[in-house]
Amino acid sequence: MWSDLAPVGRSASSGGYFRQPFASAERELAAWFVEQAEARGLRLESDATGNVVAWWDAGAGAGVLTGSHLDSVLDGGAYDGPLGVVSALAAVDALRARGFAPQRPLGVSVFVEEEGSRFGLACLGSRLASGALTWSAAAGLRDRDGVALADVVEGGGPALLEGVGAFVELHVEQGRDLVDRDAPVGVASEIWPHGRYRFDFAGEANHAGTTRMADRRDPMLTYAMTALAANKQARLADQRATFGRLEVTPNGTNAVPSHVTAWLDARCSSEAALASLVDAVTRQAAERAGRDGTTLTVTPESVSGAVAFGLDLGLDVPVIPTAAGHDAGILAAAGIPTAMLFVRNPSGVSHSPAETAEPADCLAGVEALADVLERLAS
Amino acid sequence: MWSDLAPVGRSASSGGYFRQPFASAERELAAWFVEQAEARGLRLESDATGNVVAWWDAGAGAGVLTGSHLDSVLDGGAYDGPLGVVSALAAVDALRARGFAPQRPLGVSVFVEEEGSRFGLACLGSRLASGALTWSAAAGLRDRDGVALADVVEGGGPALLEGVGAFVELHVEQGRDLVDRDAPVGVASEIWPHGRYRFDFAGEANHAGTTRMADRRDPMLTYAMTALAANKQARLADQRATFGRLEVTPNGTNAVPSHVTAWLDARCSSEAALASLVDAVTRQAAERAGRDGTTLTVTPESVSGAVAFGLDLGLDVPVIPTAAGHDAGILAAAGIPTAMLFVRNPSGVSHSPAETAEPADCLAGVEALADVLERLAS
Repeated sequence: MWSDLAPVGRSASSGGYFRQPFASAERELAAWFVEQAEARGLRLESDATGNVVAWWDAGAGAGVLTGSHLDSVLDGGAYDGPLGVVSALAAVDALRARGFAPQRPLGVSVFVEEEGSRFGLACLGSRLASGALTWSAAAGLRDRDGVALADVVEGGGPALLEGVGAFVELHVEQGRDLVDRDAPVGVASEIWPHGRYRFDFAGEANHAGTTRMADRRDPMLTYAMTALAANKQARLADQRATFGRLEVTPNGTNAVPSHVTAWLDARCSSEAALASLVDAVTRQAAERAGRDGTTLTVTPESVSGAVAFGLDLGLDVPVIPTAAGHDAGILAAAGIPTAMLFVRNPSGVSHSPAETAEPADCLAGVEALADVLERLAS
Repeated sequence: MWSDLAPVGRSASSGGYFRQPFASAERELAAWFVEQAEARGLRLESDATGNVVAWWDAGAGAGVLTGSHLDSVLDGGAYDGPLGVVSALAAVDALRARGFAPQRPLGVSVFVEEEGSRFGLACLGSRLASGALTWSAAAGLRDRDGVALADVVEGGGPALLEGVGAFVELHVEQGRDLVDRDAPVGVASEIWPHGRYRFDFAGEANHAGTTRMADRRDPMLTYAMTALAANKQARLADQRATFGRLEVTPNGTNAVPSHVTAWLDARCSSEAALASLVDAVTRQAAERAGRDGTTLTVTPESVSGAVAFGLDLGLDVPVIPTAAGHDAGILAAAGIPTAMLFVRNPSGVSHSPAETAEPADCLAGVEALADVLERLAS
């Protein structure tokens, strides 16, 4: 399965993946998933947003779901998302090889737009599938080119996750806790509270040569101080803060910008710490704006509270927290008993072409997932 | 003439102008100029890059040229460039109304891509027309979409400015010296040395949530410190430094960037001060890169020395320096006796939709230009 996926959406220059939702590379992966499901005789069910579940129909009662996503961040790695989907299909193969007969339905799921790289809202597909987000609230979301979500998918219709009794998501680790603990596989205790906040800095466009420094109202300076303040604040508090996305207007070499818009990604070990971090960064930014003659507006675009995973997997592996959002967090918050398995990542690097995992660790992940599914579907 | 130009390439949202070279709005202006020249019975001469001179043929000997440009920065003002072209045509009208009979050819010029907003090199047209830049060096310049200059113009061929004996460019002032001196019109003493320098900051892409702050190599932080250092250094030395253009890769909210490319625009009262400013910014950036685990490459993209204007206009108006580059600076450096006239700008704001000039001051500029041309072509 990895050799099928390797070339799809891959940049020849960086080696990273560009699998934006509802665009050609990601749609090719979606078609590949349908083929894989059909080859295994699984029954496909999908909703009007593009979320898909491939069911191994068996027994009765609430279904057990496992899976992940196939979209990537811009220039992302090979494992974030696809490892969970490939491992889910491989676990079905392993269970069949063991001669296991499930006592309840077993499903392999793929949720769309997990990364939020296109419409700006992470876990878009699972939010819609679980009812955490209504179609009327989502339909008007727009990508960077102004295309609305409603322009690319039909949307609406019945929710996909009725009658699901448990969800397990396997994922490549996005840090080095399993390296430190010398373990190929771990389980998640919780997802940290996290949020995205848009910082709009406004000043006055002007000529970069002729405008005296003292006469400027340059929002780039306010932004620059804010980026450094966010980093310092997160280091001091042992939390996470990142400014990784920026839009500058007019973005010309010889013009003082009129506007800078930047997005703060903040993740903390508690909701109080998150609020405190964002407050501290906002306060320092506003103070600097006063000195620069610029103005600042901060808009929270999505803020998620802490999510604890309640489903006990009965595995003897390390238990670690994660500061990454996942579809599993959305399903857990929606009341579905949920768990996550992590597979060791030697470098800890993720959301990057350098993201990796050893084949032996991936196979250990498949075995652990198969054990978990056997237990849950017995 | 202003009412013809007002709507062309204007943004409905900002009120600013987007007249990128060799694209529809700017080409519409070029066609307008041809109409204006033909309506006045001027003879059109152009080169294979799109530079145009409309000649009022008369007498013999070296021609006297006046004019400016019609392209704009992204989201620029109405006056930067067009004021010089409109005033040149209006000065021809004024001279004819005076019954003036030139003793040598009088030309109205329009040079392409003065702002460098598309192919990154300011005064591209006048550099080619004056021989300061060869076509073989220019042909491969690429815009942000990867389109080469050779893809949009034929280029090459004979230089346009053979036999030109003097050049006068009228321009809206891009500062407030004329406001301070209470004068509608002034002349330029010199153009400050200035340059554009590309700063490439490289780090490591990573997950914005899961990567510990201490494990990051985030080029955004190195850039942010550099932008603040450039501002501080320019203030201390009473010079000008601006980071107004930025490209972030991959530019995703939840990814630590792998690369940040930023352009420093620096202008100083002497070449020594320019070298010292750029050195100081580069040194501080490199020190911070060492702490951030990032790398820095600085590439000068265009650096121009001081240009003194040697052509005496015989006007009794204030003499002021300018920190803006102009086609006049290129022609002066190429050995053509050159001068600049400035028209007062009440706010001093330029390269912005807020750029403005009073009608009475513009008319004073036309009269001053007509006087100058009458003297030079007598």
